[in-house]
Amino acid sequence: MLLDTTFDPKSIIYLFDMIGIVACSVSGTILARSKNFDPMGCILVSMVTAIGGGTVRDVMLNRHPLFWMVDMNYLIVITITSLIFQAFFENSQRISPQTVDKWLKFTDTIGLSAFTLIGLKVALSYGANPLIATLLGIVTIIVGGMIRDMICNEIPLVLRKEIYISAGIAGALVFFGLQHLSLPSWVVEISTMLTVFCVRMLAIRYDWYLAPVHQWFNIMKK
Amino acid sequence: MLLDTTFDPKSIIYLFDMIGIVACSVSGTILARSKNFDPMGCILVSMVTAIGGGTVRDVMLNRHPLFWMVDMNYLIVITITSLIFQAFFENSQRISPQTVDKWLKFTDTIGLSAFTLIGLKVALSYGANPLIATLLGIVTIIVGGMIRDMICNEIPLVLRKEIYISAGIAGALVFFGLQHLSLPSWVVEISTMLTVFCVRMLAIRYDWYLAPVHQWFNIMKK
Amino acid sequence: MLLDTTFDPKSIIYLFDMIGIVACSVSGTILARSKNFDPMGCILVSMVTAIGGGTVRDVMLNRHPLFWMVDMNYLIVITITSLIFQAFFENSQRISPQTVDKWLKFTDTIGLSAFTLIGLKVALSYGANPLIATLLGIVTIIVGGMIRDMICNEIPLVLRKEIYISAGIAGALVFFGLQHLSLPSWVVEISTMLTVFCVRMLAIRYDWYLAPVHQWFNIMKK
Repeated sequence: MLLDTTFDPKSIIYLFDMIGIVACSVSGTILARSKNFDPMGCILVSMVTAIGGGTVRDVMLNRHPLFWMVDMNYLIVITITSLIFQAFFENSQRISPQTVDKWLKFTDTIGLSAFTLIGLKVALSYGANPLIATLLGIVTIIVGGMIRDMICNEIPLVLRKEIYISAGIAGALVFFGLQHLSLPSWVVEISTMLTVFCVRMLAIRYDWYLAPVHQWFNIMKK
Repeated sequence: MLLDTTFDPKSIIYLFDMIGIVACSVSGTILARSKNFDPMGCILVSMVTAIGGGTVRDVMLNRHPLFWMVDMNYLIVITITSLIFQAFFENSQRISPQTVDKWLKFTDTIGLSAFTLIGLKVALSYGANPLIATLLGIVTIIVGGMIRDMICNEIPLVLRKEIYISAGIAGALVFFGLQHLSLPSWVVEISTMLTVFCVRMLAIRYDWYLAPVHQWFNIMKK
Repeated sequence: MLLDTTFDPKSIIYLFDMIGIVACSVSGTILARSKNFDPMGCILVSMVTAIGGGTVRDVMLNRHPLFWMVDMNYLIVITITSLIFQAFFENSQRISPQTVDKWLKFTDTIGLSAFTLIGLKVALSYGANPLIATLLGIVTIIVGGMIRDMICNEIPLVLRKEIYISAGIAGALVFFGLQHLSLPSWVVEISTMLTVFCVRMLAIRYDWYLAPVHQWFNIMKK
């Protein structure tokens, strides 16, 4: 559906990126509110969640100025999202936490696909090899949520059950595989995002998780 | 009182900065001791508390060498403060924890005013716009205490009840407002520090805190 | 024994460095597994433990590209170590946790000696003075384990009881002392590593720990 049309893929990446930023802001605000953070604390945790991963990636690559210093939209979108959520959605009788959670998983996964692709592209443009680029793609995905959980004194969920890193690695494999076939860059990019999106959505839908390594051989034996 | 005299404001900022460094060292040492850290662990937590915020700000701005690598006074003051506190004030019968806490809140607020101003000035000198500069001023204030609390497995107090970020924002507003009026820089700087100091001291005195956002409208309706 | 022979000391440092990387990977994997992290989460915690300290040091010194982006062996060794440990040693009936712990303390101390020396040398080559270099040597040693513990919601052991920082400082004192005597660099380097190794091994063997500062005077009075 997406593949048989021509468009500026950059705009799609940017749109998906912003959807992910909004999702991260909401998840940061929810966790911060549950720990009784004040409004300013909630906004700060939202910022850490949304731009923490990209910031660590940029610092590791020595990429300055940082992406959110160049494009003001990030800080503005995060602040407005967090304030709106704190004002209207919290304690809302009309919208249940389950509905919020469902939408959050969907928008978060859209963001995940954009974050992975952006991480890969930024790392490659700074001369990283595929292994480093994949790692920096994963850093972009998970470090924000990890710092959020560290601030809020929780053990990061992204490292335990959720198919986050695996989805990112699947996306990276598709990216480098298709790039190797010299396909046009927008095909590579859309396919990468679709892969990340589908792997995580299927994992959520069918409750997939990665078995412990010492069970892999037993599973293969069966 | 301060305004009708001429002096080198830099020395006042530096003095206030060092008072803040001492306050951070003491608060870091107190928390680390309460978690049974050894003397070296206490010094390290003191360093993180005192120079962590400025370090993250400098790394984000790509400002090298870091401020504490240029001016050795920071590391020396922190180490000596932490050792003296561990040697004489801990388990002291003459000085109650309440007295320490009271002095700590006072000196910490002096430091807060200097940290905010230094953060703003450093960020502006690296070409940051007012929004980024304000955020980096806040980073300078709170990141040290946040990492201290994360190391010690506590939920950061600065993000919950304390008027830290709000005092920093008030200071930034005064700073950019007075700068817009083309007042001399020492007037702008002293006013900024006074604002931060007064907002936080009043907040401590009258137990001010920021209400949750969804209550703001109810409060306005009343 | 080591001193009456000629060899390329670089290779010894590199070997000890890699032994330390393996030890950090195993300790990261063990803690991550105990918190029910999935295989990818375990690898990521291993990476943080093994290269986190060096990464923070390099970022503080503005040393780019980071050491693990230049030499791929780090990421490869960590990933393979973590996977092998997850596959074969976990839940192994033949190897008890006590045996693993004993080997871990030994290999970790070898790594500690290499990490200290590498931290000192890297910092000095970037123009740091001895005080800064010592601090950055300590950062190289402990920050990886600290972030590991912060992710896993534990209070860092390295800051409480273990003779980590003290061993690093002892090594730094020997390093600068012998350098001052204009001894050949391989003598300085081997002595530094031996000092760190011996101090920590003796501390483990005889259960040494650093007394709280306020007791130092009582101890001296006795």
